[in-house]
Amino acid sequence: MEFSAQQIADIIQGKVEGDPDVRISYVSKIEEGKKGTLSFLANPKYTQYIYHTEASIVLVNNDFKPEKTIIPTLIRVENAYTAFAHLLEVYNRIKLNKTGISKKAHIADSAKIGANVYIGEFAFIGDNAVISDNTKIYPQVYVGDNVHIGEGTTLFAGVKIYSDNFIGRDCILHAGVVIGSDGFGFAPQEDNHYKKVSQIGNVVIEDEVEIGSNTTVDRATLGSTFIRKGAKIDNLVQIAHNVEIGENTVIAALSGISGSTRIGKNCMFGGQVGVIGHISIADDVKVAAQSGIGKNVMTKGEILQGSPAFEISKYRKSYIHFRNLSEIKTKLEELENHIRELKQPDRS
Amino acid sequence: MEFSAQQIADIIQGKVEGDPDVRISYVSKIEEGKKGTLSFLANPKYTQYIYHTEASIVLVNNDFKPEKTIIPTLIRVENAYTAFAHLLEVYNRIKLNKTGISKKAHIADSAKIGANVYIGEFAFIGDNAVISDNTKIYPQVYVGDNVHIGEGTTLFAGVKIYSDNFIGRDCILHAGVVIGSDGFGFAPQEDNHYKKVSQIGNVVIEDEVEIGSNTTVDRATLGSTFIRKGAKIDNLVQIAHNVEIGENTVIAALSGISGSTRIGKNCMFGGQVGVIGHISIADDVKVAAQSGIGKNVMTKGEILQGSPAFEISKYRKSYIHFRNLSEIKTKLEELENHIRELKQPDRS
Amino acid sequence: MEFSAQQIADIIQGKVEGDPDVRISYVSKIEEGKKGTLSFLANPKYTQYIYHTEASIVLVNNDFKPEKTIIPTLIRVENAYTAFAHLLEVYNRIKLNKTGISKKAHIADSAKIGANVYIGEFAFIGDNAVISDNTKIYPQVYVGDNVHIGEGTTLFAGVKIYSDNFIGRDCILHAGVVIGSDGFGFAPQEDNHYKKVSQIGNVVIEDEVEIGSNTTVDRATLGSTFIRKGAKIDNLVQIAHNVEIGENTVIAALSGISGSTRIGKNCMFGGQVGVIGHISIADDVKVAAQSGIGKNVMTKGEILQGSPAFEISKYRKSYIHFRNLSEIKTKLEELENHIRELKQPDRS
Repeated sequence: MEFSAQQIADIIQGKVEGDPDVRISYVSKIEEGKKGTLSFLANPKYTQYIYHTEASIVLVNNDFKPEKTIIPTLIRVENAYTAFAHLLEVYNRIKLNKTGISKKAHIADSAKIGANVYIGEFAFIGDNAVISDNTKIYPQVYVGDNVHIGEGTTLFAGVKIYSDNFIGRDCILHAGVVIGSDGFGFAPQEDNHYKKVSQIGNVVIEDEVEIGSNTTVDRATLGSTFIRKGAKIDNLVQIAHNVEIGENTVIAALSGISGSTRIGKNCMFGGQVGVIGHISIADDVKVAAQSGIGKNVMTKGEILQGSPAFEISKYRKSYIHFRNLSEIKTKLEELENHIRELKQPDRS
Repeated sequence: MEFSAQQIADIIQGKVEGDPDVRISYVSKIEEGKKGTLSFLANPKYTQYIYHTEASIVLVNNDFKPEKTIIPTLIRVENAYTAFAHLLEVYNRIKLNKTGISKKAHIADSAKIGANVYIGEFAFIGDNAVISDNTKIYPQVYVGDNVHIGEGTTLFAGVKIYSDNFIGRDCILHAGVVIGSDGFGFAPQEDNHYKKVSQIGNVVIEDEVEIGSNTTVDRATLGSTFIRKGAKIDNLVQIAHNVEIGENTVIAALSGISGSTRIGKNCMFGGQVGVIGHISIADDVKVAAQSGIGKNVMTKGEILQGSPAFEISKYRKSYIHFRNLSEIKTKLEELENHIRELKQPDRS
Repeated sequence: MEFSAQQIADIIQGKVEGDPDVRISYVSKIEEGKKGTLSFLANPKYTQYIYHTEASIVLVNNDFKPEKTIIPTLIRVENAYTAFAHLLEVYNRIKLNKTGISKKAHIADSAKIGANVYIGEFAFIGDNAVISDNTKIYPQVYVGDNVHIGEGTTLFAGVKIYSDNFIGRDCILHAGVVIGSDGFGFAPQEDNHYKKVSQIGNVVIEDEVEIGSNTTVDRATLGSTFIRKGAKIDNLVQIAHNVEIGENTVIAALSGISGSTRIGKNCMFGGQVGVIGHISIADDVKVAAQSGIGKNVMTKGEILQGSPAFEISKYRKSYIHFRNLSEIKTKLEELENHIRELKQPDRS
């Protein structure tokens, strides 16, 4: 996207000094500015660069007084840094506001496509899929048969949604997310090999959920795996079959929730947390990074650490002693010596 | 896919009450039933919903006696829940039984394509690739040059297989799996930078292996990385270069096996387990979630926990004491006081 | 790719014995050789197989003397194993030297495409993207708007690069890598739900960086997430928003670096390491696998282990005592008994 100096000045309510028609399509640091980019000068430390920068436009504070000739077009604003951030925000909104359905996408005849939808190149929309109004489906996304995508939801490039899954409104699924792959279920046979257990449930993702890149959510064996309204899941997280993630619960990267576990509302899990299967975790529970939850957590609001995890302040005390175990061991040996002396006083 | 009430009744050997031609394409809970969906009523607690549901078809037990007017078509069966599960199973089989080669796929002239194959839209099949009979290659899959895909194997959407790798019969690779990316091998140079070591081996995946979504398996530096027959690997697992995973070994999500390590048959690894490189693990070994294996495990059937891991019952005992380290420390201090007293009795 | 015996002999400076025009397109072990494959015989233990192998060409040492009739064409060289490895290396170079722009790729009119570029089928190149000379973009890659790809860089199948990100020269990004997904930033609201914080920065990847398959790098909230020159990141690693990874730093699989953390040069992190946000780690620091870094590491060259991590030799000592905690507990109880006796001597 290209913008002229005048267009930018209009957005940030600034005043153009120089060529109002000069155009930029990218931003740069002032010290690395190139033709066709926009920079800003907020910190006086960087003032020197404005006389040499090749940037086409520079945002400056109203009170900036050049001491030498300046080549780029200037846009004067109250606060150059705030204006720059605001500009990026507007740019981001425009950038993400793609529309139009590419002829290079594959859309099944039986799919229902809403109004004001973006479907990018090489996207696949399966039979009877429902793509609601205002959804954005980036290139190379796979939407299997009978999938429902709610209004205003964005699927970034390469998201894969197996058939029969349900995604609510205003969700964001980042690149590489996989929804509805088979749960990890195998019945052991007598000769040590495993027989696959059919995974015939699905995944239901409620409204306003955000899921980070390359995270995987398995379909239920029977019934549904649920991600409740407003939950936020980071990158590279594994959500197993029949799990339920409660409303507004936040799970950081590389965590894994095992099959059939139910996590309450408003929980916060750090990165690389593991939770075993078939347990329940109460609302408002917080779990420190790298911890492992091995049994039910019944008390609302508990804060846990360790593998297996227990109450965080106790964990921290135990861990301090763990760090000093050599010293504890030494003291113990000293005591043994003292006692040996005390018990055999005549030897001395 | 759409089914009529009569078609469904034929599959589950039920009796239609109502319109045998009404059609459904999706299932729903009875309390959330919508036109075009099929529900079931098994639990008497839910009987009230059958009088209001908008579902087009409801499966009911033979002995169900309506007390009010019912709008949906009923199908009566011995056991509505079992019949519903059976129906999903049949549906799943039909659903996964895709065939046909899309004109929107790219298939190299030199590739050999077997009989009864499904190749979806935007799939790429490289030079001299062999796609055996009855394989299913979903949209957006990448099969590099010289790759062999065995009979009856399924590659779900977006699987990426680098060139020269071998996949056996009846395997299932879930969405986003990467097979044959370069091993992580770099030779340190004097100025601290690294020189890439060419990774010119490949990956061999034997028959009946299932690999979960977004899992990665690196090619060997030289020779092959092996995943032996019947092994089951969960989502987001890392298998490094030159690793060998034994027959029927099961590895849960987010685990990582480092380069050149050899894991025996029938092992079971919990989630987030790590194994260092260049070691051997015996058959039938079990490793608790979040454990780290730092040296050879020679004894068949050992069960391990901890990071680094040791015998699980010992780990658990140590961990109980770890939880009580504050108390142990306190006792130690008391003993020190007692001994101080005992050694200086005259002071008292 | 097919090669004749004579072509191969020319590459490895060998001498053909048999049909110089026989062609192979694959390699095999001698005991599993099939028509159209090349094998080698280096270890005398395998000599028996050369009389039965169906391989079309076998590399043998100059001094190999057949004792029976041999069907495959032989190529004699000084050292058959070295020649085989060299051949794979050459093959690898040829194999990876793809060129040409597929008509099945989607390339925006405004994108700038350099010389000698490979762009595979179903790749997407967005508006104003810059694809420099000698880059290789495999099938199904997504390059968003305004992305810069430096000279000689390779993006393997299915890499996804969001808009506005910068990739330097001679980088290798493996299949499924995601660059520039949104940082995990949410502002908590009074009713427990979260408001998304716009992520309007980008990712800058400097020259000679290699990133393993399915690794994710989030864009900065404002500014840039940096991966400095020569850094090597393994598979399934999470790099959060505004992180900086220093030059020539190596991070093994399944590790996660939290937001705004700065890691120095020449560091080495084992697998499954976690680092919390907003800290700094000095140059040359080494971290053992599965460790967690919870605070600044100021000392250059420190070696750390544990979760939270501390100096590795201290960790190892503590861990030995942890393994023996049952014994320590028992000793403590014995001492308590002794002291009880000592304090009540008249009872005995």
